[in-house]
Amino acid sequence: MIKSNIEGVSFQPLKIISDERGAVLHMLQDSDPFFNNFGEIYFSEINSGLVKAWKRNKKQTQNLAVPTGSINLVIYDDRPNSTTQGVLFDCILGRPDHYNLIRIPPLLWYGFQGLGDTPALIANCADRSHNHAESEKIDPKSDFIPHVW
Amino acid sequence: MIKSNIEGVSFQPLKIISDERGAVLHMLQDSDPFFNNFGEIYFSEINSGLVKAWKRNKKQTQNLAVPTGSINLVIYDDRPNSTTQGVLFDCILGRPDHYNLIRIPPLLWYGFQGLGDTPALIANCADRSHNHAESEKIDPKSDFIPHVW
Repeated sequence: MIKSNIEGVSFQPLKIISDERGAVLHMLQDSDPFFNNFGEIYFSEINSGLVKAWKRNKKQTQNLAVPTGSINLVIYDDRPNSTTQGVLFDCILGRPDHYNLIRIPPLLWYGFQGLGDTPALIANCADRSHNHAESEKIDPKSDFIPHVW
Repeated sequence: MIKSNIEGVSFQPLKIISDERGAVLHMLQDSDPFFNNFGEIYFSEINSGLVKAWKRNKKQTQNLAVPTGSINLVIYDDRPNSTTQGVLFDCILGRPDHYNLIRIPPLLWYGFQGLGDTPALIANCADRSHNHAESEKIDPKSDFIPHVW
């Protein structure tokens, strides 16, 4: 995994096996050195130009990849004991040139915006299954996080 | 899980949470009664009208869902000790009306064809990671399996 500018956020280029019928796209195996635990796999669509933000989870680690379309992903570190408190991470995730796996540990705020002309599909293979009580949200227009969508 | 006409093949309607920004689509959780083990999550694209067939795996159980587009999935039972040996199962999988999880146990032949105008994305959350030596193929034009693509 490649480190980002936020403590604990890392990313890994994923393999795409080209095929004229349609590609095969790797995401996560139990034998990967960065695999931790399987809790849940689910998908989130985001329509072109629209935003889903901000959310964070108290306990769940997110492993995100974008096999269809592309997004702008932004992560904000508000953890009081982090060496990178106050830092933003901003990247493109998806096809064709940014098919990477991003790991987001608990307690980081994150959000994303759909890029391109078609909906993007975000796959999340989290290390524990979703628990509504462990999840928090902030309005995307809040000035608490120094990023304008 | 709902039984199919082939022994061991079952399917389950999956939840789609509608949202004007883009839907959230469930696939598989460790707490699901039909969850067995996590081996690997990967994706296979299939372009409109094209076919990926036939393949089978000696040990891996496939859990398939189609979060983007739709496909025609065909499964053939050639297992000598199966009560449904010689039976074909044929279904549509994908959006908008067939977002189901299909479980395919080892030793069944399967293949699929892309439907609609856009590429479909098949997600496979298998119970063990891929091992090339455990995988077998037959040409889609073979008359060994009584289905014409």
